[in-house]
Amino acid sequence: MQHKNKRAHTRRRFIKNAAVLAASPAMIGQHPAAPRQQVIHHVFFWLKNPDAEADKKELIAGLKTLKAVPQVRQLLIGTPASTVKREVVDNSFQVSELMYFNSTKDQDDYQVHPLHKAFVEKCSHLWERVVVYDMITDSTV
Amino acid sequence: MQHKNKRAHTRRRFIKNAAVLAASPAMIGQHPAAPRQQVIHHVFFWLKNPDAEADKKELIAGLKTLKAVPQVRQLLIGTPASTVKREVVDNSFQVSELMYFNSTKDQDDYQVHPLHKAFVEKCSHLWERVVVYDMITDSTV
Repeated sequence: MQHKNKRAHTRRRFIKNAAVLAASPAMIGQHPAAPRQQVIHHVFFWLKNPDAEADKKELIAGLKTLKAVPQVRQLLIGTPASTVKREVVDNSFQVSELMYFNSTKDQDDYQVHPLHKAFVEKCSHLWERVVVYDMITDSTV
Repeated sequence: MQHKNKRAHTRRRFIKNAAVLAASPAMIGQHPAAPRQQVIHHVFFWLKNPDAEADKKELIAGLKTLKAVPQVRQLLIGTPASTVKREVVDNSFQVSELMYFNSTKDQDDYQVHPLHKAFVEKCSHLWERVVVYDMITDSTV
């Protein structure tokens, strides 16, 4: 590489890095603004003993182990929010898990990952019903 | 403010900004790692004419207008992902909206915001059924 080219390369890299840094503060505390497609896997659990706090804690502890599955980009675990009651709102579940994947293949691979299988084996006795929604995000949003 | 204090203030601000910039690149393309609580509002729409692409597009265009509601921290819009079929997966919806709020109050305020009301007025003729799940994230995850 010629000296001049090297300098141009360094300058381009500097400009690129500067752009990244300049763009970054707006990202803090926000979800990515980038409209790239992602697969969102949202699972709702209805427990056999809906009032048993110990069962809820056990399920949440089990769900946390799924973070270690390499395909899982991000995991959020929640319980019903006490938003204003409306007919269309289903707040009858006890626990919910929200996962982000890069592709449908990653979600499919996650299903058969040993850590996910171990979770199902260990925790499935806790729930009576599970509903799963898998959505792929619109890349224009 | 004394000159010395002003300089110290400027230096502190510089250090603070530098820390923010240093922390930022890791955040790009990721959801926030911070475990602060957030309210996630996930809505599933079943259209009156599930095969009408024009209706789907109209609903998605309407949903995009909700981004402008100040309480909405982030909006994702999606359609069913073609993940492996399983009995627990409900992929019968046509369109889904996923919103992030800082609190249950913000979600409640969003419901009565003029832009949300206008969306419902303009688009509700398109859907036959809506199911909403509001969850509050576990701050320990």
